[in-house]
This record gives sequence, C-alpha cells and structure tokens, in this order.
Amino acid sequence: MTDPGEALSSWRDTPARQAIVDYVGRAVQEGGAQYVPPSERIAVFDNDGTLWCEKPMPVELGFILQRLAEMAEQDPSLRSRQPWQAARDKDYAWLGGVITKHYHGDDSDVKVLLGGIVQAFAGMSVDSYAELAGSFLLTTPHPTLGRLLRECTYLPMVELLHYLEAHGFTTFIASGGDRDFMRPVTEDIYGIPAERIIGSSTGLRYQDDDAGGSLVYQAEMDVFDDGPLKPVRIWSRTGRRPVVACGNSNGDIPMLRYAGHPKCPGLRLLVLHDDEDREFSYTAGAEKSLEQARAQDWTVVSIKNDWSTVFAEPLMG
Amino acid sequence: MTDPGEALSSWRDTPARQAIVDYVGRAVQEGGAQYVPPSERIAVFDNDGTLWCEKPMPVELGFILQRLAEMAEQDPSLRSRQPWQAARDKDYAWLGGVITKHYHGDDSDVKVLLGGIVQAFAGMSVDSYAELAGSFLLTTPHPTLGRLLRECTYLPMVELLHYLEAHGFTTFIASGGDRDFMRPVTEDIYGIPAERIIGSSTGLRYQDDDAGGSLVYQAEMDVFDDGPLKPVRIWSRTGRRPVVACGNSNGDIPMLRYAGHPKCPGLRLLVLHDDEDREFSYTAGAEKSLEQARAQDWTVVSIKNDWSTVFAEPLMG
Repeated sequence: MTDPGEALSSWRDTPARQAIVDYVGRAVQEGGAQYVPPSERIAVFDNDGTLWCEKPMPVELGFILQRLAEMAEQDPSLRSRQPWQAARDKDYAWLGGVITKHYHGDDSDVKVLLGGIVQAFAGMSVDSYAELAGSFLLTTPHPTLGRLLRECTYLPMVELLHYLEAHGFTTFIASGGDRDFMRPVTEDIYGIPAERIIGSSTGLRYQDDDAGGSLVYQAEMDVFDDGPLKPVRIWSRTGRRPVVACGNSNGDIPMLRYAGHPKCPGLRLLVLHDDEDREFSYTAGAEKSLEQARAQDWTVVSIKNDWSTVFAEPLMG
Repeated sequence: MTDPGEALSSWRDTPARQAIVDYVGRAVQEGGAQYVPPSERIAVFDNDGTLWCEKPMPVELGFILQRLAEMAEQDPSLRSRQPWQAARDKDYAWLGGVITKHYHGDDSDVKVLLGGIVQAFAGMSVDSYAELAGSFLLTTPHPTLGRLLRECTYLPMVELLHYLEAHGFTTFIASGGDRDFMRPVTEDIYGIPAERIIGSSTGLRYQDDDAGGSLVYQAEMDVFDDGPLKPVRIWSRTGRRPVVACGNSNGDIPMLRYAGHPKCPGLRLLVLHDDEDREFSYTAGAEKSLEQARAQDWTVVSIKNDWSTVFAEPLMG
C-alpha cells in the first residue's frame, strides 16, 4: 500500500511526492520511531486553493453573487448598497479586493460582504440551501477553465486524499469557506462525507412544525473559520490534534503549525500557485505562509513542478 | 443481524424492544417502504440519564465541584461565593436544585454555576483537561451504586448502540454535558470515538508556541447544548437529520422531534427512570417529554419493566 506509483500518478517524482510517501511509510510502520496509531491519523485540508481552484474568485463567492444580484433585481433599494451593487454590476475589482485585503489583515470589506451573505440566505432551511448549492456546483461552468466548477478540483490532491485514506488516515476539510456550501458535493468529489466537513457557518435556529421541524439560517454569522480559529474548530469537531495539514494561504498558518507535535511527527504541505498556463499564478495572501514554510521546513507543493496533471479530463466539451 | 436475541440480551421481550427491532428491520430492508440508506442512518443519544446514570447528581458536576472546592481551599475569598461555597460545603440542596430549576425553565442558577465552571478550567489546555477528566472517570466511585462512575453506563443502552452500529447506523452522542469531559472515555465505554461526541463547549483559543501550540480554555461558555440547540449542533456536526434519537428529559424534546421525517421514518426513544431499587426513580425535568411521548407515539423505555439488567457487573468489589 505504500507504493505510490499508481495512487499518486498525477504527481511527478519530485521531493514533494517523496516527502509524502516517506511520511506515510513511517507513520504506518508499527514499531517504528515515527509510527502514528490509526486513531491519531487525522489529516486536515483547506479547500479553496488547496483542493479546488479559487481563481479568478472563490467558487462560493460566485454562488453568493448570483443570489445577491437576484435580490437587487427584486429590490431597487439594494442597488446602491454593497455588496449588492458589486454583485449586480459585476464589479470584480471590488470583489477581488475583499479576499486579498483579508489576507493582509484588513477585514473591513469582509464584514461588508458577510453582511450581505447572511441576509442572502436568512430564513432559508438547510435543506433548500443544500439543493441550491449542489445544483450551482453541478451545473455552473468555471469562467475561464473550460470545465464545470465541480471539475475544478486538483486531481493530485484528490489522489492524495485517497492515498491517505488507504493508509488508515481520516481526512477532514477545514475550510474558511461555508461548511454547508461544500457538503452537498464533497462525498462525490473528494470521498469526504458531510460529517467531516469543517468550515465557516451561519447562525441556525430550530423551527418546529408538524413534520419534525427544520433548521433555518439566521441573518448572522456563527463562525468565520480562518486563521487561529482553524485549530479551534478542528479540535471541536475531531477531539484530536491532526498530524497532516495542507493549506495554501496565510489563513492556514495556525492549522499548519498545530499539525503534529514533537511526540507525534507531522506532515505540513503548502500548495504554491505558480502555474499560469495550467491554473493561475499568485502569491497574494500567501506571503507569510511561504515564509513560514521555508523557516519551518514545511513541504511546498509547486503546481508547476510537482504535478504532471492539474485537473481531471472535463465532462463538458 | 436483525435477530436481537444475543445483541439485546439485557432487554426483556417487551413492546419497547420489539419497537427497536421492528424499526431496524424495516430500515435495513432494501426495497422496503421504510428503507433507510446507510448514509442516512444517523442515531443520536443524549448522555446524562440516557446512556449513563445522572443521579444523585450529574457525573460532570462531581468533577467540577472537586475542582471548585480545590480553588476555594486555595483562595479564601471564593468561600462565600457561589458556586464555590456550595462546592466546598457540599451543599447538595443548592446544587441539586440547579438542574431541576433548569428543566423548569429557570436558568438563573445554571448561569451562576456556569460562571464558576468557566473559571474552573480557564487557562488549561485541552490535553491537560482530558487527562484530568479521564482520570476522574476512571477512578472515582459513584456515591451510592457501589461501582466506579465509568461503570454507571446502562448495559441495555450500550447493547443498543452496538446493535445499531452492527446494522449500519452511525451513532453520535448529543449531550447537554461538556463535550470534552466525555471524550476521554466514550470510545472505551460506548464504542463512540471523540469525533462523534456533540455537547456543550467552553470557549477555546489557539495559543502558539515552539511545539505547534495548544488549545486553551477561555473563561466563557461557547454553547450550552440543550433544548432547541441540540438539532442545530447535530446538523452542524453531521450535516444530516438523524433518524434515531434517544433522550430522557425535556431538554431532549427538540432533538426527538427533529429525528425522522414524513419521507424518512424515525425511531424516538425516551428513557423513563422508574426503578428505585436498581437505579433511581424520578420524572422531575422530564414531565413535558413524557407528555410528548404519549402524544407523538414515541417509545418510552421503562428501566423497571424493559431492562432485565441495568448495569454490567462492576470491577470494584
């Protein structure tokens, strides 16, 4: 099982792949100095920019903008207010700046955007939201990559998830994106079921009725799961310190630092977006994580150099 | 696998056991009208009074009181303040009233108690807390039952957990008690691992250091997981509506109502404490749930009539 030949076939034979294979080989070797018991084999993955493409804008943002634009169509008073204005006018400059500013420590526009997001789905049941999100991901094309959004997962990372599972690891997603947005598709695209999706969340309220009641979104954020909240949420959900962590931005630093321990060796992977031909090339929002990777000897995964294939063949032509 | 003979050997052959066996039999019958696909076979259990004994006071309360009494020994100014005063003076009247009042809708003393609880462990890491809690549960005797606290689990309920797991259900604990207090022992006593423990939680903060950092409790509650918050927390953790729910008090009503759906049949069990010889006899805090059970055709499980054995043989003499 530790032969990665077929399992990691979209990875080139580089030091990054070797670091993964070596780590897993040591972790499963009973009696070895770096053996990790199966119950401790917890692997956590960021989603946007780590498991699926986040450019030209995060997938979830497209979903929200579609909804906000619909709201602005119905209610003219929203058309001069952010984020409805940007959504309706397709003002990508304003929108693109939100995430970059966040990674540089300025959350003022994040708050404006979140203010719109929580109103976008307030009063909707979790079941209706799941249907909308799943349908959006199944049917919407990526703006530039010539494939559906759900096909914008990185094939080498999907292989890595399966490789880890095959070696007794339990994989979780620990994303800054909305937990319930991902859940309708994660089992299908990653093999990770709903109960192993950790992420940001909107406030929920139980609303009773004659059919057992339902859970309804409130017009308020619950948790924005990024930065130092990632380890908190991972513990809250798993009750364990992970040993494998993989991210791609400054918001993943605490999660990466938290993975492993002097008594229990860890593997920390940082995806570097350096392939403008096959994906995108950017380090905005990842500068500090790249510094830490160098200082802490984390494994940097270069899309350009370490992956022979980035995406699986698309279904659409 | 649907023959319950051995699997449910501590259950008498009564309508309650029959209701369980019939439900499971229908749920696993592919092609049947009441078939439940494996991914939807989510079963949630309250803990205190449902899986383990909660009298003369909740197990966790004993743990907290021990800690509060230690604090009052070290700091005389705490000795005239609740809940430290009650902890040091072993004022069980005040303490017993807290939970009963809560079930009657008066949370004033719960807040006083929680105010002490959050200070009791503020600044402690999750790892240190887990050691303390595990050690307490492993070594402390129950005040009256002649057995260790960890041996105060109901054998028929443990059998039920295993019976459900054997039929493809995934079991979760959804407790009003502290999530991290239970986690050190649940795998051992119930076969339920840490990631499937849902419960109340104290605020946590990630505190970085050279060894990957740690998670430290803050002097504030995060969530008191009871009543209408139970369905919210169950969804947040599982991403699914459960089909089996089991509780024993008014705080479990929303969880029980939420289990199952007109399109996906559910099983709702309510444990009735009516056996003063073998356990305890009380309905305080359960009155409304018993009313709902009658009105909604839930299955009431009488400890006196439905269980041939309540506890496994204790290890201590």
